[in-house]
Amino acid sequence: MFITFEGVEGSGKTTQIRLLEHYLAEKHIPFVSTREPGGSPIGADLRKILLSEEHDISARTELLLYMAERAEHVEKVIKPALMEGKWVICDRFGDATRAYQVFGRGLSRRLVEDLESFSTSGLEPDITALLRLDPESALRRARARNLTLPFSEGKFEAEELDFHRRVYEGYESLAREFPRRFSVIDASGEPHEVFARMLSLLSKRGVF
Amino acid sequence: MFITFEGVEGSGKTTQIRLLEHYLAEKHIPFVSTREPGGSPIGADLRKILLSEEHDISARTELLLYMAERAEHVEKVIKPALMEGKWVICDRFGDATRAYQVFGRGLSRRLVEDLESFSTSGLEPDITALLRLDPESALRRARARNLTLPFSEGKFEAEELDFHRRVYEGYESLAREFPRRFSVIDASGEPHEVFARMLSLLSKRGVF
Repeated sequence: MFITFEGVEGSGKTTQIRLLEHYLAEKHIPFVSTREPGGSPIGADLRKILLSEEHDISARTELLLYMAERAEHVEKVIKPALMEGKWVICDRFGDATRAYQVFGRGLSRRLVEDLESFSTSGLEPDITALLRLDPESALRRARARNLTLPFSEGKFEAEELDFHRRVYEGYESLAREFPRRFSVIDASGEPHEVFARMLSLLSKRGVF
Repeated sequence: MFITFEGVEGSGKTTQIRLLEHYLAEKHIPFVSTREPGGSPIGADLRKILLSEEHDISARTELLLYMAERAEHVEKVIKPALMEGKWVICDRFGDATRAYQVFGRGLSRRLVEDLESFSTSGLEPDITALLRLDPESALRRARARNLTLPFSEGKFEAEELDFHRRVYEGYESLAREFPRRFSVIDASGEPHEVFARMLSLLSKRGVF
């Protein structure tokens, strides 16, 4: 089972993933929990380039670096774990590229899809949990959290609200496009409420 | 004028570029001398990932990282210099990707050409100086030089001779495919002899 988590900055992905990890551990389901960018062996170096405001890389460079990390991540981390029968929980994956680079930055969907097929060798998530939270509330949460990080990962939080609205609409559009893969979860309220909604949706889909 | 230097490891590109820099300075021609990987603001970080043997990244990841660096290099370094009327001398560019990743590693030519157009926004060199040296002699030279470097950049030197023969043949094939752009220079003998041959070829093309 390969489950990805998606949503705008501040939608609560990290918290929900922690709760799911705890739940899987209690049920003795072996899993690997990872993230993009950052999950591959070269990911820590690339994450600094990708998320720091200091470099100000171009949209093309950004797309290619995300895809490079994904190729390494799929080959070295995700596929080996799935081959061992483990579940893989991944914080952001291909839909983040579609939402941020295509809907957010306006890059070509066709090119992104070609790169996605190339970098993943065709691997797709079984389930994509989309945490739905309006971009205004989400962004307030993300900016507060970002103040506590040891170095700046604030590149996306620093984008204008219009950008985050496009990303939000992008995710909504992808959820309509891939209804069998996407589970859309209302991410408002307390973390345990959101988690309960998620478990209920996932069990309806036969995940548990 | 945008001039790229290409050739197998150890073909003498760096030495010839130093001689050309000296020559351009004497003629008061303003220029920028740069290289791939490494020439862009994020290049130093990526060069370590790309050329060290330690990471052992996949062929897909390698291609995407080269393309990411090229996108940043073109936008932040090469195009601005050309816009200011400077010459740009670049140690490796798109033909290296064709020779190493397509001919050497067997990746799809169509995909590499699509990525090349995307990462360069269509920018091509005016002249590509291909230093022709048989891969056996070149590799001996590269391995000797590599022993003196402060950290390992020996990933390509460590490839088998068959790989270097494919890269060599790849360059020969590209020179036949793009005869108006390529100047093929016999790179055997002393550096000053090679440089004299190169100047003579470039002046026949009206570069000087």
